Amino acid sequence: MNTITGKFHKTNNFNEIVLERRSVKVYDSEVKISREEMTEILTEASRAPSAINMQPWRFLVIDSPEGKEKLAPLASFNQTQVLTSSAVIAVFYDANNMEYIDEIFGKAVEHGYMPQDIMNMQVQQAKSYYANLSESDLRDMNLIDSGIVSMQLMLVARAMDMILTQWQDMIRNGLLKSLVLIKTGSNRSC
Amino acid sequence: MNTITGKFHKTNNFNEIVLERRSVKVYDSEVKISREEMTEILTEASRAPSAINMQPWRFLVIDSPEGKEKLAPLASFNQTQVLTSSAVIAVFYDANNMEYIDEIFGKAVEHGYMPQDIMNMQVQQAKSYYANLSESDLRDMNLIDSGIVSMQLMLVARAMDMILTQWQDMIRNGLLKSLVLIKTGSNRSC
Repeated sequence: MNTITGKFHKTNNFNEIVLERRSVKVYDSEVKISREEMTEILTEASRAPSAINMQPWRFLVIDSPEGKEKLAPLASFNQTQVLTSSAVIAVFYDANNMEYIDEIFGKAVEHGYMPQDIMNMQVQQAKSYYANLSESDLRDMNLIDSGIVSMQLMLVARAMDMILTQWQDMIRNGLLKSLVLIKTGSNRSC
Repeated sequence: MNTITGKFHKTNNFNEIVLERRSVKVYDSEVKISREEMTEILTEASRAPSAINMQPWRFLVIDSPEGKEKLAPLASFNQTQVLTSSAVIAVFYDANNMEYIDEIFGKAVEHGYMPQDIMNMQVQQAKSYYANLSESDLRDMNLIDSGIVSMQLMLVARAMDMILTQWQDMIRNGLLKSLVLIKTGSNRSC
């Protein structure tokens, strides 16, 4: 398990974080987010729940000028946001996430969260349940889990005094399932 | 706009709420949630962001013994949880949510969040954008938004010292897109 230090949190006020979160459309492109801060954001967001804890989300962080130039044309209404953000976090889901079930449940056993016999029973149940799911059912579950982790991402970043604005233009591209934009520093709220 | 009082919050500690949230599987069926508490939970959760602010989610609260009896057979692995919970919140999405665009944007103008000319421009843009979306693209967006609001629901309930365990069995039923279970009082964490 990753250790979460919370050392980058600027506020721990739940009401402020949840109820005063805003979408922001104009960014200060000079502001940088360190690798360490980004790792902390992604680690905390990953504490979100998912269907049988499969954590199907995969993150792609785009923070180089070249990466943002490539990405911008895919963001129909949000090209300026991509280009001026500190970083973009693209949220994908892994359609084959069930391949990790033994590893994920195995870790829970290793850390003493679950006895081995419960793991064996649950893994067997889950495998036969998933084997009967249609591709469309699986897709629905993965999309919901993508939304769940996106909300937690937005809140965790807000606790670190950053703003994430999530938008969905890129879904249509067929590549990105959900997209979140990060910024820090001065901003204009819309 | 609804007024949020936060008066039911038992803790305002963001780290505790977000990082110590747990799924809970055994409930005390004697614990009741008042109508006023439930309204507060749903109102606060609805502050979550959604695609062009269409707030496509619709909630169905099931808290009568008769309602839970009807619901239980639909929850494959979670029948006991449904039957012993204080309440179940079913999260649906409204596939025709765009019908409310003039009303939603009109309220933003009324409250001074947006000038009328910006509303006119954005509503027109959004309508033509949505007119070109396939049914499958729309479904994806609505499922992600359902996940987003579900995460906020879980956190807001946690701030009120309740536990929501979200699960997705019922998706397969074709009726419920996402489901969240509430409880208060004593519990055993799994």
